[in-house]
Amino acid sequence: MTSPVDVLTEVECWAVLRRQELGRLAFRHGDGLQITPVNFAVAGDHVVFRTGDGGKFSDLVQNPEVAFEVDATVGEVAESVVCRGVVVELTGEQALMTDQLRLRPWVASHKTHVMAIRVSEITGRRFHLTKPWSHIRPV
Amino acid sequence: MTSPVDVLTEVECWAVLRRQELGRLAFRHGDGLQITPVNFAVAGDHVVFRTGDGGKFSDLVQNPEVAFEVDATVGEVAESVVCRGVVVELTGEQALMTDQLRLRPWVASHKTHVMAIRVSEITGRRFHLTKPWSHIRPV
Repeated sequence: MTSPVDVLTEVECWAVLRRQELGRLAFRHGDGLQITPVNFAVAGDHVVFRTGDGGKFSDLVQNPEVAFEVDATVGEVAESVVCRGVVVELTGEQALMTDQLRLRPWVASHKTHVMAIRVSEITGRRFHLTKPWSHIRPV
Repeated sequence: MTSPVDVLTEVECWAVLRRQELGRLAFRHGDGLQITPVNFAVAGDHVVFRTGDGGKFSDLVQNPEVAFEVDATVGEVAESVVCRGVVVELTGEQALMTDQLRLRPWVASHKTHVMAIRVSEITGRRFHLTKPWSHIRPV
């Protein structure tokens, strides 16, 4: 019997990231945790995203260690990739270079800061789904 | 001009949660953070999910404070809901009752523990998307 879960290689993990544009960022917020969706792009071994001047930016400056997750389900196969690393703000030419990335805000709000997760750990899994109750789900 | 972001009411937030079955759980892992996709169901004001005996279970027992996120994009509208709260393990009749929920594992691995997030804070936003570059995206 095939295992219902495969472990992805690092190369496969980065390939999953490059195919997606929406991920979820987990970070510290005071003594607690916060999680938020972010539009992102991959540049080298960095996950790059924009943020405004608000609470998320302050939280990341104070506690730059983050976890970041992307998942995608196609038919009966789901893939999930999790990165961990430290966020730095890109400035000057590095920030300008991100204009070449597919990294544009989905909504027309002002997002000043270009942030990059320096990924120190990346893991991923592929799930072969069994959803025997799907046919009885309410629509 | 319409604002690109609406704040959801609590009732709207719970409605978004009830329509979805996959969310992402952020929790502490030692001194760091971890994030993982989970299948979930809503019961009252609890978010219920299953987990096995592994690292996630130990992490949640040690540090029960979590953040949980769900998002969905339909056409040009995206919704995201974030809950914060404390995880408790359900046992006895409470755990058995969850057999009535739409809470079945997507993969055939053994998941002993029924966990519930007691939600203390729930917030959500609706985004009106502008993706002017969509037509030039690689397929």
